[in-house]
Amino acid sequence: MTDYELHPQLAADTVSVCAWPLCEVLLLTDANYPWLVLVPARPDLRDFHDLSPDDMVTAGREISRASEALMELFEPDKINVAALGNMVPQLHIHIVARHTHDAAWPNPIWGVAPPLSYASDALGTRLTDLRRAFG
Amino acid sequence: MTDYELHPQLAADTVSVCAWPLCEVLLLTDANYPWLVLVPARPDLRDFHDLSPDDMVTAGREISRASEALMELFEPDKINVAALGNMVPQLHIHIVARHTHDAAWPNPIWGVAPPLSYASDALGTRLTDLRRAFG
Repeated sequence: MTDYELHPQLAADTVSVCAWPLCEVLLLTDANYPWLVLVPARPDLRDFHDLSPDDMVTAGREISRASEALMELFEPDKINVAALGNMVPQLHIHIVARHTHDAAWPNPIWGVAPPLSYASDALGTRLTDLRRAFG
Repeated sequence: MTDYELHPQLAADTVSVCAWPLCEVLLLTDANYPWLVLVPARPDLRDFHDLSPDDMVTAGREISRASEALMELFEPDKINVAALGNMVPQLHIHIVARHTHDAAWPNPIWGVAPPLSYASDALGTRLTDLRRAFG
């Protein structure tokens, strides 16, 4: 058992939006998609079923809260939720707003379109919008 | 509001393993991967956050139960859990046992390897093993 620390690859690929009771809320810096990553701030988690029963209840609530904010802000056609972790072993939950006109539709997003950088003002605006939507 | 009915595409791609308090438990008939699909037996669900709070708690429990059975039976390197639904709009949750030697590793499984049919005896054995592991 070690203390919780965000995996360096996740730290490199994201910016912090806020912290919730269970999860760090991160924005993945790929402007192709409104793409959040929730990371439960608990040590030594790999798979979704490694969460304690109480933390799993909180995770469900936080997944909903993130999804509903993406719905409100981006009016997507679908929300994709996934805990894969084949590349980065620390448990992290992708929550992605998908549109039928996006770069990967109808496929999953991973490995399809090259990551697209945010313009710095667009990144700032997105963070502000997300934090406001989270209330 | 209509009654719950399994989407015909999911019915075509799977065989039934059993029914739990919330979800139908299905085996996706692609022998490349041990691949379960959980479908909450509620009408008119599309996204994970459409589940009621109570059903979400049950969903977490059933995702864990399915994941732990896959761990026990197949000793995978990783469990992938995902609710995507870009192709089939009815809420369904993929739970896939991943191995570092499987056909898609380390990528997500969707759209990588052509589906591989189960031999009929292998399919029967797999269903028996799953039902036994579910207790």
